[in-house]
Amino acid sequence: MCSLPVPREPLRRVAVAGGTHGNEMSGVYLARQWLQAPGELQRPSFSATPVLANPAAAAACRRYVDRDLNRTFTSAFLTARPHPDDPYEVTRARELNQLLGPKASGQAFDFVLDLHNTTANVGTCLVLEAASNVFALHLCRHLQLQSPELPCRVFLYQLPGEESYSVHSAAKNGMGLELGPQPQGVLRADLFTRMRALVAAALDFIQLFNQGTAFPAFEMEVYRKVGSVDFPRTEAGDLAGTVHPQLQDRDFEPLRPGAPIFQLFSGEDALYEGESIVYPVFINEAAYYEKGIAFFQTEKFTVSVPALPALAPGPAP
Amino acid sequence: MCSLPVPREPLRRVAVAGGTHGNEMSGVYLARQWLQAPGELQRPSFSATPVLANPAAAAACRRYVDRDLNRTFTSAFLTARPHPDDPYEVTRARELNQLLGPKASGQAFDFVLDLHNTTANVGTCLVLEAASNVFALHLCRHLQLQSPELPCRVFLYQLPGEESYSVHSAAKNGMGLELGPQPQGVLRADLFTRMRALVAAALDFIQLFNQGTAFPAFEMEVYRKVGSVDFPRTEAGDLAGTVHPQLQDRDFEPLRPGAPIFQLFSGEDALYEGESIVYPVFINEAAYYEKGIAFFQTEKFTVSVPALPALAPGPAP
Repeated sequence: MCSLPVPREPLRRVAVAGGTHGNEMSGVYLARQWLQAPGELQRPSFSATPVLANPAAAAACRRYVDRDLNRTFTSAFLTARPHPDDPYEVTRARELNQLLGPKASGQAFDFVLDLHNTTANVGTCLVLEAASNVFALHLCRHLQLQSPELPCRVFLYQLPGEESYSVHSAAKNGMGLELGPQPQGVLRADLFTRMRALVAAALDFIQLFNQGTAFPAFEMEVYRKVGSVDFPRTEAGDLAGTVHPQLQDRDFEPLRPGAPIFQLFSGEDALYEGESIVYPVFINEAAYYEKGIAFFQTEKFTVSVPALPALAPGPAP
Repeated sequence: MCSLPVPREPLRRVAVAGGTHGNEMSGVYLARQWLQAPGELQRPSFSATPVLANPAAAAACRRYVDRDLNRTFTSAFLTARPHPDDPYEVTRARELNQLLGPKASGQAFDFVLDLHNTTANVGTCLVLEAASNVFALHLCRHLQLQSPELPCRVFLYQLPGEESYSVHSAAKNGMGLELGPQPQGVLRADLFTRMRALVAAALDFIQLFNQGTAFPAFEMEVYRKVGSVDFPRTEAGDLAGTVHPQLQDRDFEPLRPGAPIFQLFSGEDALYEGESIVYPVFINEAAYYEKGIAFFQTEKFTVSVPALPALAPGPAP
């Protein structure tokens, strides 16, 4: 495993972003709360910066205005010459890259936690690019131990060779937090409270690290994206059916060859024709219809995460 | 009870509308199916007309483009002089009024069934303007008897003195069918199948009536809207909290004085301060945030529905 470097200094520049998608209400309202009253984001060694990532989309209660902000942090968009006709989110990505980055620079924020909701039944889902992020995997482990009775899975979303494109990729390190199911445009108190608690626990972990805590090695189950499956469609591209009732809401459960995955409008079933078990996630997420994704296929495997050493004591800040 | 006149002729001009709200996917996809293959809407005595009510909103997967189509069938909108700058849905309401109405005219359709989804946990909810609609109440009874194990409630939404404004108000008679919970933009197979079966049963009922079936009197529980409750808000009008976990998903259950209804972002609870039990419905519906509605308050009462007499035999059509 080729690991991201483990931080050797305290993480002082930390941000918590909500409203990267303007209709994912837990993060939208947490960000708005913290912009009014940021005290909740303060810890002895740092104060996390609250960010409402896509204010125009949040004001309109839409995922985005022109294009998906969370797919816009590529070098092509970030480094192109600005133009007055640029899509709103391209301009906004450049602003956020100035605030949180610049991406891949020494000036970038140390850590960005980006808050999301999904209509899929993922429970608490911690979203990392890859298993090489030792610091973030320790953070995930810390979050899992907070509420061991609640499922809290780790999803690795980056495919081999894929350029990072998410808001948190502007920073040196980061992760996404997805809570579901929650309809777009709805604020459920249960998910709001849970997200608030998870953010607090994440900041506590950074505080523990900053104050010199070491964390031992462990093994962890993770789900790694291996591809996606589109809905059945007509020749014209319209839906010809939707997710089968036997698959709906079964995120992170094993899908076996021959099991039904779609129910066609004709009444017939479409079966999973793969040759091995996969673990579907983000099943029937509203925002993915337009992306041609009915669900992601993942593989489940166990990763051995090395110890996170304590920071060497340094001069007091 | 001042009743709508009971039909004295067979209902030949019947429509089933979906996509009145373009992100309520069960009706959107049923209407699209039926426009391709209308055979499912045929009965011996009539063929129901499928209507995709708001095609522009359905194409954009939004509730509406400019304004809520299902609040636009008032005489002010329908009779005003058309103008090129009219909101899209005002123009569309006039088109639909020509197709299904004109409202309150002898040329209007006999019955329009309008298909909706909600993010609220209403199960199957049959939506009538008022308890004076004897024909529609018999239809509701027929639908309830199809699947007696599933809750199937009747919601009377019109307040005293209020002008009708819904799509189905263009016809001589009609009702709405709401299935939930389903997120906006998501098509769940279970709700799609259930809506399809309910529409079939509704058309079967009209067929039974048309062929001379009489239906006996009965008593029925109905829920009548008495008002609405907004979210707690800041002085600036922003949300200050959301629906309490003890109220969320409890549509049609009794709400007692002193019970919590909102959880404020501060962590405090807001309590229901009414003096009597009410039955909240459409709790935390996504589309109602902008309308200032966290839920409707209803009263539950029992209505005695008179018999629906058989049509007098007439000449064969």
